[in-house]
Amino acid sequence: MQITEKVKSNKFQTVWFKNLPVILAGYSVAGPKEGKGPLGNIFDRVLKSDYFDENTHEKAERKMFETAIKGAIRKAGETEASIDMLMSGDLLNQIISSSFAARQLDLTYVGVYGACSTMALSLAQAACMVNAGYFSCVAAATGSHFATAERQYRYPLEFGNQKPPESQWTVTGSGCSIIANHGSGPRITCATFGKVTDFGIVSVDNMGAAMAPSACSTMIAHFKDTKTTPEHYDAIFTGDLGKLGSNILRDLLKNKGIELGQRYTDCGHLIFDKNQHAYQGGSGCGCSALVFNSLILNRINAGESKRVLFVATGALMSIITAQQGETIPCISHAVVIEADKQ
Amino acid sequence: MQITEKVKSNKFQTVWFKNLPVILAGYSVAGPKEGKGPLGNIFDRVLKSDYFDENTHEKAERKMFETAIKGAIRKAGETEASIDMLMSGDLLNQIISSSFAARQLDLTYVGVYGACSTMALSLAQAACMVNAGYFSCVAAATGSHFATAERQYRYPLEFGNQKPPESQWTVTGSGCSIIANHGSGPRITCATFGKVTDFGIVSVDNMGAAMAPSACSTMIAHFKDTKTTPEHYDAIFTGDLGKLGSNILRDLLKNKGIELGQRYTDCGHLIFDKNQHAYQGGSGCGCSALVFNSLILNRINAGESKRVLFVATGALMSIITAQQGETIPCISHAVVIEADKQ
Repeated sequence: MQITEKVKSNKFQTVWFKNLPVILAGYSVAGPKEGKGPLGNIFDRVLKSDYFDENTHEKAERKMFETAIKGAIRKAGETEASIDMLMSGDLLNQIISSSFAARQLDLTYVGVYGACSTMALSLAQAACMVNAGYFSCVAAATGSHFATAERQYRYPLEFGNQKPPESQWTVTGSGCSIIANHGSGPRITCATFGKVTDFGIVSVDNMGAAMAPSACSTMIAHFKDTKTTPEHYDAIFTGDLGKLGSNILRDLLKNKGIELGQRYTDCGHLIFDKNQHAYQGGSGCGCSALVFNSLILNRINAGESKRVLFVATGALMSIITAQQGETIPCISHAVVIEADKQ
Repeated sequence: MQITEKVKSNKFQTVWFKNLPVILAGYSVAGPKEGKGPLGNIFDRVLKSDYFDENTHEKAERKMFETAIKGAIRKAGETEASIDMLMSGDLLNQIISSSFAARQLDLTYVGVYGACSTMALSLAQAACMVNAGYFSCVAAATGSHFATAERQYRYPLEFGNQKPPESQWTVTGSGCSIIANHGSGPRITCATFGKVTDFGIVSVDNMGAAMAPSACSTMIAHFKDTKTTPEHYDAIFTGDLGKLGSNILRDLLKNKGIELGQRYTDCGHLIFDKNQHAYQGGSGCGCSALVFNSLILNRINAGESKRVLFVATGALMSIITAQQGETIPCISHAVVIEADKQ
């Protein structure tokens, strides 16, 4: 068993964006189950079928991915010709949803892998590129699909296995944000990159418990680097810890003297309601991608939140590592989004 | 069949690094077969067994990865405490070699996926971070292992399948470079990010032919953006096109009026000799990682090359996409390395 805690180092993990990259728009494409959930009416598009007129779920996943990117470009008032780069990744082996979506687009492409932390990772990396003046407009995207993730990580749906009570429901959905050095909208003011942590969880059905310590590690680094406390933020969101995982995170931070309070919630908590049989809540790259590109950006754009800390959480195991008896290493990346003061 | 050619766009794909990030050191860990090849005596470490004292090849791959990172940090005269970030990826599902190596290190971690283009992608991204002043010292790494790649992409070695003549041999090896805003050594002066191209190749045994058009696309963009020609460089290396693929690349560029000439070679060409039964030559992330972190850096450090164009090439398919009848999308990323003038 591998237990690592990397919060003692004095190195900064945070990057500040002096040029305040703008999120011109976010676009969300949700599956049918997600469309029936509490946030169903705020997604940009809800699919009628999780096949999305394709003959495999993998093809449906990549079509959602492409739809989210094109939707975000349109909503931002940009065109494919005015976007420089796509920064994206997903859960499938060789991040095929991301790479095959990139094939359809005339953009430079950087594939990233952070499992379910990808929305924050791609936002952070896109902000790094725009803030430095390397490119003027970068798309950050991710997504997931319940059926493809179950087949790859656990069992194909046809097998009909039962899920244990600590499990979560992989979200079918995709989200994309357009980050630019121009225009108006919420600003990405800083990003805290995570370190890989591992607290010895072995069950691939217990992602919340595996990922909570990594969210704790990145949040502690963030508060230390930025000399802030949770009170500095109107709202704090984690990606997909679910109910169990977010309670573990509250306890871990409480032990370090940090109280998250009512301002904290988890995207996996918000996306399904109790009657939807989603166990501990939503998970997958699509979970935080959907909530970020709908609820979180909407609230900032409506003036309801002025400063938000968004911490997406990822579990970095594969089937091979699980079969070879390894525990689950995890990572979380954080970005701070602030309302435009101009 | 999907055929895309994205060289008509007028957008820049190149990023210039005004602060000239330094490559403090590169470190290479090679498998036994690679150690017996033409470059065997210039690798930093050659393994006696491709199990590297582990009980699975996957564990051996990640141990090589970790050994390369720690070796590069040591060779650069740095310590783990003075390195800020690891930027890395590999071929295995969920880039486990990279992520599990990151678990052993007290560094922030950004996982990238560009298949066999990862050495150039991680160098380019690391240079982006250092040049912008976000971090002062970033490790860029990748690697691959013949046995794990064969098992994942084709057949387990125990199956004893025959390889067709157009195939290549996945390199067992790992390499890491340390990129910093201080010290002396070769400088990364610019990077050209690739777009995903697909010329309709379906055979997962014919990587050279699949990847050659993507190398062509990125090289044309590079020469256009930088207003240079091949003559501007002492040497031009592609990652792992092999003999067949590099001949295709020469032909594709010749059709566009660009002659690569004698200055051009391919890392997959160099790493094995004719008697090693490697078919068209080496491939895998480890191929260009080993050659870059030994031969290429050595030549620049020895004053034999003043300006090198390094173009690593990657094929972005997975088993699922091959089974679902998809063609192979590819990407290539390029970095320019120049001798230190100070």
